[in-house]
Amino acid sequence: MADSVYKIIELVGTSRSSWDDAARNAVETASGTLKDLRIAEITKLDLKIENGKVAAYRARVKLSFKYERD
Amino acid sequence: MADSVYKIIELVGTSRSSWDDAARNAVETASGTLKDLRIAEITKLDLKIENGKVAAYRARVKLSFKYERD
Amino acid sequence: MADSVYKIIELVGTSRSSWDDAARNAVETASGTLKDLRIAEITKLDLKIENGKVAAYRARVKLSFKYERD
Amino acid sequence: MADSVYKIIELVGTSRSSWDDAARNAVETASGTLKDLRIAEITKLDLKIENGKVAAYRARVKLSFKYERD
Amino acid sequence: MADSVYKIIELVGTSRSSWDDAARNAVETASGTLKDLRIAEITKLDLKIENGKVAAYRARVKLSFKYERD
Amino acid sequence: MADSVYKIIELVGTSRSSWDDAARNAVETASGTLKDLRIAEITKLDLKIENGKVAAYRARVKLSFKYERD
Amino acid sequence: MADSVYKIIELVGTSRSSWDDAARNAVETASGTLKDLRIAEITKLDLKIENGKVAAYRARVKLSFKYERD
Amino acid sequence: MADSVYKIIELVGTSRSSWDDAARNAVETASGTLKDLRIAEITKLDLKIENGKVAAYRARVKLSFKYERD
Amino acid sequence: MADSVYKIIELVGTSRSSWDDAARNAVETASGTLKDLRIAEITKLDLKIENGKVAAYRARVKLSFKYERD
Amino acid sequence: MADSVYKIIELVGTSRSSWDDAARNAVETASGTLKDLRIAEITKLDLKIENGKVAAYRARVKLSFKYERD
Amino acid sequence: MADSVYKIIELVGTSRSSWDDAARNAVETASGTLKDLRIAEITKLDLKIENGKVAAYRARVKLSFKYERD
Amino acid sequence: MADSVYKIIELVGTSRSSWDDAARNAVETASGTLKDLRIAEITKLDLKIENGKVAAYRARVKLSFKYERD
Repeated sequence: MADSVYKIIELVGTSRSSWDDAARNAVETASGTLKDLRIAEITKLDLKIENGKVAAYRARVKLSFKYERD
Repeated sequence: MADSVYKIIELVGTSRSSWDDAARNAVETASGTLKDLRIAEITKLDLKIENGKVAAYRARVKLSFKYERD
Repeated sequence: MADSVYKIIELVGTSRSSWDDAARNAVETASGTLKDLRIAEITKLDLKIENGKVAAYRARVKLSFKYERD
Repeated sequence: MADSVYKIIELVGTSRSSWDDAARNAVETASGTLKDLRIAEITKLDLKIENGKVAAYRARVKLSFKYERD
Repeated sequence: MADSVYKIIELVGTSRSSWDDAARNAVETASGTLKDLRIAEITKLDLKIENGKVAAYRARVKLSFKYERD
Repeated sequence: MADSVYKIIELVGTSRSSWDDAARNAVETASGTLKDLRIAEITKLDLKIENGKVAAYRARVKLSFKYERD
Repeated sequence: MADSVYKIIELVGTSRSSWDDAARNAVETASGTLKDLRIAEITKLDLKIENGKVAAYRARVKLSFKYERD
Repeated sequence: MADSVYKIIELVGTSRSSWDDAARNAVETASGTLKDLRIAEITKLDLKIENGKVAAYRARVKLSFKYERD
Repeated sequence: MADSVYKIIELVGTSRSSWDDAARNAVETASGTLKDLRIAEITKLDLKIENGKVAAYRARVKLSFKYERD
Repeated sequence: MADSVYKIIELVGTSRSSWDDAARNAVETASGTLKDLRIAEITKLDLKIENGKVAAYRARVKLSFKYERD
Repeated sequence: MADSVYKIIELVGTSRSSWDDAARNAVETASGTLKDLRIAEITKLDLKIENGKVAAYRARVKLSFKYERD
Repeated sequence: MADSVYKIIELVGTSRSSWDDAARNAVETASGTLKDLRIAEITKLDLKIENGKVAAYRARVKLSFKYERD
């Protein structure tokens, strides 16, 4: 791996049921176009509330992948 | 919404099964008396342990709602 | 002042024009009911956006005042 | 304890002699009205100075207690 | 909104007159191409100085918007 | 409890299904040898990704227990 | 610029009208005696309150300038 | 000292009377078995409360000492 | 420079020999396509280890450059 | 106070007996030459250890005072 | 890797010549006894100074390895 | 050392070749006039870029030394 360069992007995944699913949604959406995803760090968790109920779990994730000069 | 004022309070929800439920408990308990809750930020996650087992998942949440001069 | 106890609350002020006004709105709303406010620390600044425009400047402030056992 | 909800408040205790006393003042003032206080985290220590001398030790504390819908 | 994915980018807006304008410049520049911007968090404020005068107010902002696989 | 001394260690638990299970794995593995575990603070959450899928949820936890001079 | 050494000092500027002016006051006061100021980072914003009104906006700034051995 | 390796551990000392004593308890307990302790950084202060009174001052400390491959 | 908008991206450079080279690799890879790079802040340093040896030095850098609406 | 400028310096006070005294030593040493000291924030607490005993309590403090162009 | 548990320890490596070597010394000292080291995060860099010269570069590193119940 | 007072200043050293040299430049420049320097903490690393190349490595350091009332 030495001397490679990686890029980091930050996504927010959402789910009606859990933060586990929210983060997985972010990863699987990104993996359609980004190669070599290996680690996703969680940088923030929050909740969207509507009518006094949890409407969505949201997980902010930082994803790294191989940088291709575009 | 402009020129409104909101208040932020910090609660700790607990659950025997998950942090998702712990946070939801905090939100739903608060929504009984607080109007216009919209976002809950998670500021800390921890576990209470008894006899070497997880006895409770705990999620600390910051909730904002419309400030009424009381 | 020695041996007094103070309470800290966190408010979010909003304004259509600036963070300066947003924070002042929070302070002046609170000062209607809270005595002896002296310092307000800013803990977060953000913007609400609607239709691609800044709809509100928001300033989160921590305010301290004399604690009365209620 | 499972499925209970707790509230966190932030107080500033002061003392002429030490931060230990400043924090204890905050706790004992709060315990007059709040039930089931168990832990107080210190979030800031500072000093008030008058005429080049320490006039007060101040300790900011976060206290958690059982949340009753009020 | 559930199960959507959002992307977060970080921009720096600048202005000769205020941080309020600096942040608004960043938002309005971005809103030309990004849909559904809703919140911009401020992550840093600084000043550029030339000849002992403030030459520019700079506000670093994090913007979230709907993620389209590109 | 006064005048006791506690030690804090940091573990990373992993799970194929959730952060709740990842943290519980760390606690239950540690509780085989460490006595009097009471609180586990979460200090980091991340994901291991393989072939574009979440391969493991990982939770970093700080655990405190009675310090025995070893 | 290589191999130069810079010193960083921290000032608090104040203004009756805005944080923009408060920070500019700090910079322009310092630039009377310090050469080659180029960047000022904001490290804290707060408000001084008197009689329930904002009496001063205060901006804490870190300024760097060429270090001369004095 | 060059090219030595040190290990850092984190302890929590407790005391009925002050944080000064709590930290000293942690240090003196550790110094029975660890050689060459030189600095202890405080990473957290808190209080244990029982029946509305401070039952223990607790100081979390990071201690470094010479690393022996064990 | 006033009223310009800049974008910030985060890259990870790697090197077999040092963090200095790791960061330089990130900068020089990015400068092939990004104009007007001026400052790179280091946000994290770590090491990749293989067979008990340092296999790569890694430096995470935030780079700012002129924002062109793409 | 409006439109004044303050300078912030950082000192480390030491004491054989407590952090309270360590911080007071820093303040009283500084007040010999600096006018209008009003607040001292604690930014770090640590201990110097010699022969397995606490040799000194050390408190790092940030002090603000009126800035005179020197 | 799923459902494994890892332990994290914190070491300080030192070197007369660079932080790169300081961190490598910590890793290679630890790898004599710890299996499956894979990542070392840097948590602090500092310098020891003697007679006005840099006497040692010091790098604090967090290392994770497979947890064996000991 | 007990009851001494130390002052902390923050410098930025620069170098064309490495952060190790950048920090050493800051220390050795300061040691011409400051007595009893013992520790330098690194608080920030960045890079200055010109024409797509690293023009300077910069290390921000906090230095402590005996405080003489001046």
